[in-house]
Amino acid sequence: MTKFFELVAEASVRNRSMVCVGLDPDMAKLPEAVKGSREPFFDFNRAIVDATKGYVCCYKPQAAFYAGADRDGELLKTIGYIHETAPGIPVILDVKRGDIGSTAAQYAKEAFERYGADAVTVNPYMGLDAVKPFLDYEDKGVIILCRTSNPHSGDLQNLVADGKALYEHVAELVRDEWNWNGNAGLVVGATYPEELAKLRKMCPELPFLVPGVGAQGGSVEEVVKHGATADWGRLMINSSRGIIFAGKGADFGEAAGVAAKKLRDEVNGCRK
Amino acid sequence: MTKFFELVAEASVRNRSMVCVGLDPDMAKLPEAVKGSREPFFDFNRAIVDATKGYVCCYKPQAAFYAGADRDGELLKTIGYIHETAPGIPVILDVKRGDIGSTAAQYAKEAFERYGADAVTVNPYMGLDAVKPFLDYEDKGVIILCRTSNPHSGDLQNLVADGKALYEHVAELVRDEWNWNGNAGLVVGATYPEELAKLRKMCPELPFLVPGVGAQGGSVEEVVKHGATADWGRLMINSSRGIIFAGKGADFGEAAGVAAKKLRDEVNGCRK
Repeated sequence: MTKFFELVAEASVRNRSMVCVGLDPDMAKLPEAVKGSREPFFDFNRAIVDATKGYVCCYKPQAAFYAGADRDGELLKTIGYIHETAPGIPVILDVKRGDIGSTAAQYAKEAFERYGADAVTVNPYMGLDAVKPFLDYEDKGVIILCRTSNPHSGDLQNLVADGKALYEHVAELVRDEWNWNGNAGLVVGATYPEELAKLRKMCPELPFLVPGVGAQGGSVEEVVKHGATADWGRLMINSSRGIIFAGKGADFGEAAGVAAKKLRDEVNGCRK
Repeated sequence: MTKFFELVAEASVRNRSMVCVGLDPDMAKLPEAVKGSREPFFDFNRAIVDATKGYVCCYKPQAAFYAGADRDGELLKTIGYIHETAPGIPVILDVKRGDIGSTAAQYAKEAFERYGADAVTVNPYMGLDAVKPFLDYEDKGVIILCRTSNPHSGDLQNLVADGKALYEHVAELVRDEWNWNGNAGLVVGATYPEELAKLRKMCPELPFLVPGVGAQGGSVEEVVKHGATADWGRLMINSSRGIIFAGKGADFGEAAGVAAKKLRDEVNGCRK
């Protein structure tokens, strides 16, 4: 394991946590306390980070929320704030990019150099050369979409070729061919626990980022049962809405802290 | 056909052109004449647009180049400039996004509302709900990755399930299930002419965006032979580097105009 996944493992041990908090601010859902601020997304995230940083192993801002709201500057400030006030807690920038080599190199530059992220999510549809420019940053994490949490993820991912589902082909490529720097992981949705179990058997060493508990309906117990390993750092269970929008009042930060601690403890309670 | 593809067809007829110019500025390759400017990407694009707008059916800025260089503002200005000075020539924002529904909706907002693009490229790996928020903008075009032009595109796209390659499954989904607004098209690389021919037979009505001629090595003759239809508007042949970096001097715009006209005439010469 190189830098990013070492950071996750260290933060996991330090905070006894497999929880990743998704920083996905949405103007319509922000508490009144920050809605009128000049930088509502940053002020919101700052309070969330302050209250949750003792209970997480990483953060995961979803780039789309900042891009859609024309608030890229607040994304940059958020990542900088995490690095400054929660040193050792790495940041996954959830971008799900995928493009031809020369273009992917620009996206890698965007995520790692412009925004200073410690890891990204990447889409494998275009094959190795769409992923390689990210993998070449050997200290950074590259978490590749495998079996995603959304309702229609099976449209393509469940197609069976040579006796294996497409998502299994992705897992094998990542495990056997794309992980020469030891900096690759998989995105596996909590909403498909059988596939999670199968993937964990196939890839006992690979770190999994698991979205889909909480608002999307995945079960924490099933995720831990099928996805956790004996050591820390190979499972990052993401919750966004369930934590960041736990409170609507002026104490929304505190409410998020309570929710993050609760999820952390629930996860740990499910470990054998 | 709805709005975007009607615009492409009208521009194609008006300019007798199937050429799409890719606006992919790269600081390392910009002519000295604009390198020192305050807005080098915008100034570069402006000269390219001025010189090429009579020879194209659409433009395609690749978002990664602006994102990697922290020049999103110049992307916005470029799209605005095209709409202002080349009315009726639509703009495809090449973003290749794909994410769960609520997130994809943010990316759709980014492309169509924040940047004012007329169409986007989208990645199908996550299935229908990753594509639907884009398709729901019925006046906008949604061009879905099918068989991409890059060297490793076959890693997943060529896997065969139920007797059909993955890219054929994508084409069928788009043709039969995802095109209820008539605003969907396919990305099919010029570098795989046999697959292009097969896809055109499968989908005679769908518009194809074909990157990969020029720097990537695809043959114009093969693309026209296998991809063109009797009417205009179903084939957009993209060239980026071959046109925009045709000249290195102060007359780089003019050189791009000559290259765009040359490609247009070459394409038209290949039509039956």
